[in-house]
Amino acid sequence: MAVQRLLERLERIYSIGGGPGANRPAYSAAEDQAHGLVARWMREAQLEIEADRAGNLFGRRRGSRPGLPEIWTGSHLDSVPQGGRFDGPLGVLAGLEAVERIGPQVRTLAVVAFRDEEGWRFGRGCFGSRALCGLLEPGELATADDNGITLAEVLGGSDIPPRGWLEFPPAAYVEVHIEQGPVLERLGAPLGVVRSIVGLARLAVTFAGSPGHAGTTPMAGRDDALCKAAAFVLEVRSAAASLPGAVATVGQLKVEPGAANVIPARVHLVVDARAPEEATLTSLLEAIHARAESAEIDLLRRTTAVPMADSVRDLLREALADLRLPTPELHSGAGHDAGVLGAAGVPAGMLFVRSRNGGISHSPDERSDETDIALCIDVLADSLRRLAMSP
Amino acid sequence: MAVQRLLERLERIYSIGGGPGANRPAYSAAEDQAHGLVARWMREAQLEIEADRAGNLFGRRRGSRPGLPEIWTGSHLDSVPQGGRFDGPLGVLAGLEAVERIGPQVRTLAVVAFRDEEGWRFGRGCFGSRALCGLLEPGELATADDNGITLAEVLGGSDIPPRGWLEFPPAAYVEVHIEQGPVLERLGAPLGVVRSIVGLARLAVTFAGSPGHAGTTPMAGRDDALCKAAAFVLEVRSAAASLPGAVATVGQLKVEPGAANVIPARVHLVVDARAPEEATLTSLLEAIHARAESAEIDLLRRTTAVPMADSVRDLLREALADLRLPTPELHSGAGHDAGVLGAAGVPAGMLFVRSRNGGISHSPDERSDETDIALCIDVLADSLRRLAMSP
Repeated sequence: MAVQRLLERLERIYSIGGGPGANRPAYSAAEDQAHGLVARWMREAQLEIEADRAGNLFGRRRGSRPGLPEIWTGSHLDSVPQGGRFDGPLGVLAGLEAVERIGPQVRTLAVVAFRDEEGWRFGRGCFGSRALCGLLEPGELATADDNGITLAEVLGGSDIPPRGWLEFPPAAYVEVHIEQGPVLERLGAPLGVVRSIVGLARLAVTFAGSPGHAGTTPMAGRDDALCKAAAFVLEVRSAAASLPGAVATVGQLKVEPGAANVIPARVHLVVDARAPEEATLTSLLEAIHARAESAEIDLLRRTTAVPMADSVRDLLREALADLRLPTPELHSGAGHDAGVLGAAGVPAGMLFVRSRNGGISHSPDERSDETDIALCIDVLADSLRRLAMSP
Repeated sequence: MAVQRLLERLERIYSIGGGPGANRPAYSAAEDQAHGLVARWMREAQLEIEADRAGNLFGRRRGSRPGLPEIWTGSHLDSVPQGGRFDGPLGVLAGLEAVERIGPQVRTLAVVAFRDEEGWRFGRGCFGSRALCGLLEPGELATADDNGITLAEVLGGSDIPPRGWLEFPPAAYVEVHIEQGPVLERLGAPLGVVRSIVGLARLAVTFAGSPGHAGTTPMAGRDDALCKAAAFVLEVRSAAASLPGAVATVGQLKVEPGAANVIPARVHLVVDARAPEEATLTSLLEAIHARAESAEIDLLRRTTAVPMADSVRDLLREALADLRLPTPELHSGAGHDAGVLGAAGVPAGMLFVRSRNGGISHSPDERSDETDIALCIDVLADSLRRLAMSP
């Protein structure tokens, strides 16, 4: 059965790099090894192999009209440290299974494995798809990892033109990915269609106070940076909770000087704010700024919300309905290569597979059910067939 | 003038150990050097020198009735790293100046320099006075500093009997110290009388939440450890602000896992709570516990509030009034050797000297005015004279 082979392949990829969990950093020997394995499986499936200048791997089955824009599916093979089995490889392997089911078709089908989606090594993520689409930041190739190795170095002199190389964009890109959240599990739905990929802002916020001796400074005269920051943390939560689909998190917070008997003089924290529509994200950021008037704020990062293509969403919902499955739509709170392709103008869509354990991800506890995975192959194959047959 | 000599001696002590600021850790060569300097100045003042088993330094001027309980004054000579000029040495040097002004007297007068008051090297503080009074913790001599050197080792085989060696307690102990807080500066009073030394509790509090992806976990289902901790920080502040004289501070807070895109799973924080009366401290701790019901709480440390002796307080206020100075009373938010002697049953009192710069201390910016210091010598000399003349 296709799902059995897929699960065995997931384990093969998961075992690369040594445990605990998945350990396949971007452009590491472990990511290379995963690309090598997948290339072998592509060849076994009679696909034509190509690696582009960023190392993205394509496996193509030619259509009867190779001049027509292609149909792509895929995801990524890199992982965070101590990551899970499903995040990334599931989309590539589901693509391989789906393509094998599709007979002679009009358009060329490609299964893609993008490089460096996670971004924890070089900081930004979706490097492979952004390079392809010409969406790198100025000077990004000079970004170094913690060991001082730059992106330019890992690319080994490969020519990365600023405008990318997407001269012939595909007619559609469909990515299967685990949800990495609890929404489908709560809904009792095995699969869901992504409506949009959130826009993200990351803010560094610093509150200043007056340090003083914790014993000798009366409460009345205090200017405690941590009390200011604590009120802000709660206000950030309220602001996000009041906006549909928005989320905001303070995941990092550092107190200075950090002694038990000294009133905090400075607090540095990072806010991660996301929303499925640009207008909502703008409102959220305005609310956050209004609540941090006394603080210094630095915008570390900002990405735009990307709606998925209506055409692909409709197709995926139809395929779900044909299998008598629920057809929920949800947004993606995390970034994905489909967001990059969508931002570059490719009609892109995503099919989410229910995550178990409350949606835990980036962890060896990441889990999706075998039956859900079997269904995602069916839905993907059905959707790709329709796309690839359309003249 | 006495105050000029005192200020010069302060600078001599301040320059030991190298800058920036004072650097005379407990039982270090730098503290030893300060004790050596003060011993020389004691000898020049015709005092009899004695160092006890803990290294506390006594300089005595014998009274006409040496069998009567003695009168002690003093403070400590160790410092925190990068500390100020006044914290500690001021009390020892003011004692020296005061004793020199007192003619032949009935009771023996002693100027004392206690060891290791600050406690940052071995963690507890007031080691010298507690050793003398038999108030060490069980096994305390095995406490090691950051380099693994124990108190027993720095004491070099000196016999430290658990019951101490205060067989003949003094009739009074009067300690001059800078306030290290803003109260006298706000009142416009050069000197103040300490009513009590606060009791202190230090609590380690841990809040647990459910980690999750900051982008994919909707606000509604979150269990964010930092949001719980933030609410607690604000409630600790309110609880302390509603109790007279009480203070509470969260000076340390650590978020786990501490990644910008992960909902905090655990927050560890430390509460420092103090109050001038035991009943107030108990109420404060009850309020703090009630507000941390969902947390794990560890009591790291607890000291009892120590009221200063009425007899010494009255005497100090009279001496202030004789000089037509304001006679404010205030509590000490920090621990002092006078609190240890008071807890051991010695009638103890403290005279606080106004701190400038809002009370900043444990910093090279620590400052008190020359005129205030001159006044503290006058008041101390007057008080010691009365105590030493009483049969």
